[in-house]
Amino acid sequence: MASNRGVVYVEPGKVEVRSIDYPKLLNPRGRTANHGVILKVLSTNICGSDQHMVRGRTTAPAGLVLGHEITGEVIEAGKDVETLEIGDIVSVPFNVACGRCRLCKEQQTGVCLNVNPARAGGAYGYVDMGGWIGGQAEYVMVPYADFNLLKFPDREQAMEKIRDLTCLSDILPTGYHGAVTAGVKPGSTVYVAGAGPVGLAAAASARLLGAAAVIVGDVNPARIAHAKAVGFETVDLSLDAPLGEQVASILGTPEVDSAIDAVGFEARGHGHEGAKHEAPATVLNSLMEITRAAGKIGIPGLYVTDDPGGVDGAAKSGSLSIRLGLGWAKSHSFMTGQTPVMQYNRALMQAILWDRIDIANVVGVKIISLDEAPNGYAEFDAGVPVKFVIDPHGQLRR
Amino acid sequence: MASNRGVVYVEPGKVEVRSIDYPKLLNPRGRTANHGVILKVLSTNICGSDQHMVRGRTTAPAGLVLGHEITGEVIEAGKDVETLEIGDIVSVPFNVACGRCRLCKEQQTGVCLNVNPARAGGAYGYVDMGGWIGGQAEYVMVPYADFNLLKFPDREQAMEKIRDLTCLSDILPTGYHGAVTAGVKPGSTVYVAGAGPVGLAAAASARLLGAAAVIVGDVNPARIAHAKAVGFETVDLSLDAPLGEQVASILGTPEVDSAIDAVGFEARGHGHEGAKHEAPATVLNSLMEITRAAGKIGIPGLYVTDDPGGVDGAAKSGSLSIRLGLGWAKSHSFMTGQTPVMQYNRALMQAILWDRIDIANVVGVKIISLDEAPNGYAEFDAGVPVKFVIDPHGQLRR
Amino acid sequence: MASNRGVVYVEPGKVEVRSIDYPKLLNPRGRTANHGVILKVLSTNICGSDQHMVRGRTTAPAGLVLGHEITGEVIEAGKDVETLEIGDIVSVPFNVACGRCRLCKEQQTGVCLNVNPARAGGAYGYVDMGGWIGGQAEYVMVPYADFNLLKFPDREQAMEKIRDLTCLSDILPTGYHGAVTAGVKPGSTVYVAGAGPVGLAAAASARLLGAAAVIVGDVNPARIAHAKAVGFETVDLSLDAPLGEQVASILGTPEVDSAIDAVGFEARGHGHEGAKHEAPATVLNSLMEITRAAGKIGIPGLYVTDDPGGVDGAAKSGSLSIRLGLGWAKSHSFMTGQTPVMQYNRALMQAILWDRIDIANVVGVKIISLDEAPNGYAEFDAGVPVKFVIDPHGQLRR
Amino acid sequence: MASNRGVVYVEPGKVEVRSIDYPKLLNPRGRTANHGVILKVLSTNICGSDQHMVRGRTTAPAGLVLGHEITGEVIEAGKDVETLEIGDIVSVPFNVACGRCRLCKEQQTGVCLNVNPARAGGAYGYVDMGGWIGGQAEYVMVPYADFNLLKFPDREQAMEKIRDLTCLSDILPTGYHGAVTAGVKPGSTVYVAGAGPVGLAAAASARLLGAAAVIVGDVNPARIAHAKAVGFETVDLSLDAPLGEQVASILGTPEVDSAIDAVGFEARGHGHEGAKHEAPATVLNSLMEITRAAGKIGIPGLYVTDDPGGVDGAAKSGSLSIRLGLGWAKSHSFMTGQTPVMQYNRALMQAILWDRIDIANVVGVKIISLDEAPNGYAEFDAGVPVKFVIDPHGQLRR
Repeated sequence: MASNRGVVYVEPGKVEVRSIDYPKLLNPRGRTANHGVILKVLSTNICGSDQHMVRGRTTAPAGLVLGHEITGEVIEAGKDVETLEIGDIVSVPFNVACGRCRLCKEQQTGVCLNVNPARAGGAYGYVDMGGWIGGQAEYVMVPYADFNLLKFPDREQAMEKIRDLTCLSDILPTGYHGAVTAGVKPGSTVYVAGAGPVGLAAAASARLLGAAAVIVGDVNPARIAHAKAVGFETVDLSLDAPLGEQVASILGTPEVDSAIDAVGFEARGHGHEGAKHEAPATVLNSLMEITRAAGKIGIPGLYVTDDPGGVDGAAKSGSLSIRLGLGWAKSHSFMTGQTPVMQYNRALMQAILWDRIDIANVVGVKIISLDEAPNGYAEFDAGVPVKFVIDPHGQLRR
Repeated sequence: MASNRGVVYVEPGKVEVRSIDYPKLLNPRGRTANHGVILKVLSTNICGSDQHMVRGRTTAPAGLVLGHEITGEVIEAGKDVETLEIGDIVSVPFNVACGRCRLCKEQQTGVCLNVNPARAGGAYGYVDMGGWIGGQAEYVMVPYADFNLLKFPDREQAMEKIRDLTCLSDILPTGYHGAVTAGVKPGSTVYVAGAGPVGLAAAASARLLGAAAVIVGDVNPARIAHAKAVGFETVDLSLDAPLGEQVASILGTPEVDSAIDAVGFEARGHGHEGAKHEAPATVLNSLMEITRAAGKIGIPGLYVTDDPGGVDGAAKSGSLSIRLGLGWAKSHSFMTGQTPVMQYNRALMQAILWDRIDIANVVGVKIISLDEAPNGYAEFDAGVPVKFVIDPHGQLRR
Repeated sequence: MASNRGVVYVEPGKVEVRSIDYPKLLNPRGRTANHGVILKVLSTNICGSDQHMVRGRTTAPAGLVLGHEITGEVIEAGKDVETLEIGDIVSVPFNVACGRCRLCKEQQTGVCLNVNPARAGGAYGYVDMGGWIGGQAEYVMVPYADFNLLKFPDREQAMEKIRDLTCLSDILPTGYHGAVTAGVKPGSTVYVAGAGPVGLAAAASARLLGAAAVIVGDVNPARIAHAKAVGFETVDLSLDAPLGEQVASILGTPEVDSAIDAVGFEARGHGHEGAKHEAPATVLNSLMEITRAAGKIGIPGLYVTDDPGGVDGAAKSGSLSIRLGLGWAKSHSFMTGQTPVMQYNRALMQAILWDRIDIANVVGVKIISLDEAPNGYAEFDAGVPVKFVIDPHGQLRR
Repeated sequence: MASNRGVVYVEPGKVEVRSIDYPKLLNPRGRTANHGVILKVLSTNICGSDQHMVRGRTTAPAGLVLGHEITGEVIEAGKDVETLEIGDIVSVPFNVACGRCRLCKEQQTGVCLNVNPARAGGAYGYVDMGGWIGGQAEYVMVPYADFNLLKFPDREQAMEKIRDLTCLSDILPTGYHGAVTAGVKPGSTVYVAGAGPVGLAAAASARLLGAAAVIVGDVNPARIAHAKAVGFETVDLSLDAPLGEQVASILGTPEVDSAIDAVGFEARGHGHEGAKHEAPATVLNSLMEITRAAGKIGIPGLYVTDDPGGVDGAAKSGSLSIRLGLGWAKSHSFMTGQTPVMQYNRALMQAILWDRIDIANVVGVKIISLDEAPNGYAEFDAGVPVKFVIDPHGQLRR
């Protein structure tokens, strides 16, 4: 039981499954973590933000164990853990949060002040996020377990719905955060930029929130087809027809109430030519065009402070040429940042358990073994409309 | 009584007091406005945003009658007016709003859909805002008067507090909107960029909202001195000491809870050299640096879609190089747009009438005659720490 | 065209269809209302609150023309009307609101200060609500039409969905207000007291808002069966099993996140014996029992200031024996009052037009002629699970 | 150091200072609490809610160590404590909260689910609140210390402002909660029922929140005089002039925007005769009369589920005869429950440290020794306008 294997970032374009240390109840600075638990990982998903690292678009070091979307079973608990027991099945929010700082007390767990000496906010298996070991592995340590973990009420029910529940660690709350910060309400018209898993989760969240019409846009034909197949309106950004016109052909008006950027800094341009090139401000600038006056723009898509692969000097340091004058004229609001998963995961679990959202189907969950993970990274990077879920112990139905 | 005089924009750098038409109950498209009233103007203020036009930084046409900060007495009322009477003293929100469209019903009066064929949102005497005639004049027409006007409860009391109440048409609600959208609450630490009247109104609003510490920054020594004299902490942005260090010397930490951009697109750079040149993204980028994680940034300062005098092509079309990666890493929110005055003016009137805010003193109200207006524009443009209030009929105490 | 017929309250237990005056553009005090329109009524619903009057449980005078749930076609418009045209199909919020007072500007249209000299808030065809003539008639006048009316975007589409859209004038927003003020969110567990149309509309609204589980309780077996048939969990309050136990058998816990009182002051007791008698505080007291700590209780059900038929002196003057100590110990919030329809009707129209809510089916819409109205009142009073919609001109499909 | 002394409830009307056990890092069920700290108590206040117990109006058992308003110095910390150090000066919220349950994560710390087996919510030294030992003592144990405690940034500054900071454990946040839940905002008119310390703290909070006018009502002449002396408007409820008339003589209108019940279940009637007798529903019913339509009523005053001394059977079980019909007609909201101190104490600390609120002066802080505590209880019960602060170690300036 002291052995462990995990997915390791090797170099741009390359990940490998390697033997790694079995987790200990220690934080990255070596301090004892009696508040932590060891989980046997039941499912752990490959995330689009992992791809930023694997593509070499961050300063992630070689050897980093990947994985921040984790669902598991408690197999060991520190002495200070009070509310969890061995055998509990739990969802791990991707944010590492202490539950003791000012911002955690305000449930701003995405920017916890105590888990990352470099800046606000920690995460598992991610560059610049505090050095917490990733969970695309057989076993992983979760600190501040009473605070961080969401326990599923029934073990059997959890195993039955694991394909949906595995989305609670990141992707579903992240899409939902995008929808909530974009002001989606019953009756809203919504545009989601990006038909990858976060975009689809945002679209599904908008539907759960009662949106009237949800439109998803992308340049990737397979993803557009998938989005349409799971019930959303779609627009094809590789066409030369302006986005506003495409929106108007669906809604009868070129503007939506709420817009969500589920793409982030690696955006491509729009149109036949544009889609061939990276154009990092395209998504935000186009969202200002098609969002109505006094509308809100939610930005769950990741923007970084340092991008070694940026298209120019400004992009390399995280600066974008934004049409702020346009947004200001329309009284837009812009909401950014890591999703504070804990604000949402309990409610979304309830929605899953009562069959109000079929998130696994919407994002295209596909279960693979740990050894298939490198292949999953490659396929995902190629743009297949699939959310890869790693099953490190072969416990899940495929 | 059929004569009228007003302040007219002539050419960049030049305004004149001229004879203008006496107002009629007609909208700019010539439709009868039985919902309107004619006001005898009691006080009408010169605004920093008027200066953008007068400096030639907009596409304002020659001949435009200026003035959107108006307080007056009802002297004629259209047939549909029900709640106002001849003799009432009223404050006019600078936004022209119909009270009948979707956004007015939601009190988003800054982006009314019916008063400006060109875009959402109307105003008096302003380029691109629907062609409503300005109120730096003896008389002015206000449409949708039942909806738009705020009546003061007592005529005598109103005349006594007119120096403060004149700030309700724009500057005080605009500063307050900045503070509210920046999330200012009791106990907040607040930074306000810009010590002009809007910045000072934002600072006074933050104090009214219970802020613990309010810091105002500028490059203009007279304005910094005035801000200090009326009770705020100050930083001097013409110094080379970084803003964060100056903030830390006051608060003990380099970050604030809430930040307000009361400068807008004509910003200058920071530091000894920087302050000599226009650098339109400086304010926003510096606010991201000094705003804490999960903090909010309110942006009442004006950003435009077209700036003939922009420093480069991007600026000319309202695009700025924003460090969005930094804001995203800190989970910032950005709130833009014209202030919907009606959301705030009644509450702020109450605060004035009960002596909870001394806004006239804070912004440095100085009463001048209509004929002194051109001189007021020139002095204000030169940076004196004064808010010029025109008294077209010589009815106010100086 | 100058003739008109409407449903008139005659005496307790009796309504009649009579000839009534054709509407004029005048308010109840005889002042010209150029802001008003005359509607040809397309559909007008019988409401549970009409029953309070018809049962003699209010001080409604004989001769009152009933009806406050109105959908119609504009056939005449006053001179001040700007945004509506002859032929528009519109929904009329049951609240009469001026659009010009402080509370209307804040969208608190349920308590408009200008339309009822006796108290805040007006309505059509209702005792103590300002004397506005009811709309269970062929024609009706709507004042402040630009502000009050919700125009359907497309005439043909409106006629096709009229069975659902007719619910926008009162019942759907009222149920929705109950859900919103009870804090219903995605993932919530919800209990609705009362399976009449408002209760069912509250339940449908909770579902639209993303609630995980929605439980409806009543003592009427036909209504319980209907609630179950349209997809809700149900409890039978005529059983002796305590409400908490019945809730626990569904949820696994005896408490819900949110509770909605869709019954009001004519409540019956719980249990085999209790259900035989009126017990006006039963609903609220039972909701405190089954609402979790920090939960909210929305109270769209009507409570009155004067009830001639109250069970005792306290009830006759609107006083109830409330277990406030229990609610306080659980940090409950209680939200009361007439629904401000305008806050919600546009969003709910969108939800209907995009097929996100099938409200006609949920509440059991049944279309009847004007002459069938007295019979509809009698059947509804007997407790059939039906929402009667009067079609005064025989224009709707049955 | 192993000795300890504290204030003990003996019987109705009697408290004594006795030797009590020195605190251990154990919870009331005997489980080790490595998350706890031992505090040397710097200041601990006598609260009006202590009086309910001492008057015999609760089921508090003899021998209970009193005191839930505690400020202290950390002198021992459990092994799991990470963010606090020996020597830190801290404020203890009166709510005991685990920081790990659903409600604590939502900052509903007043109804924590894990610290009281009998019901939601725990407190120190209070009947039915979980058995946590009170802090009117030399030493006290605080569990979940990282989560619960608010550390003052500077030790010396804390000692200088201790008279104000001691109000952060309960009374100031409780008054503030009343004001916030009553919807107090800049410009509001506010009525506070009760001029005891909670009422005064509510009034001071309303002022901090920017209220235009704050009126405090009581029947006790000394308290009315004190309220006036510290700057509030007052009304005398022992007069026969109706409350509405007294309000109108101050505001010009008989209604306020926001009302706060700072009295609770031991209310007396109004008027010359009424004030002689207990009348538990008087406060709430009178607040509905004088609160405007769509206004909110905050209820920080305590209402209990069991009152052995209630005026009748209904009152004994916490039922009151509430004029709900009136509140419903005015669309009132009612917000009840224990204050979640953690939502507010950090912001209020900032307001104190930056001299924005002089709470010690407003509530009349008077420092006494531990041995003077029984006398303090007696004087406070007699209605002196004083907030007694016990200084168990003689460390404070008097």
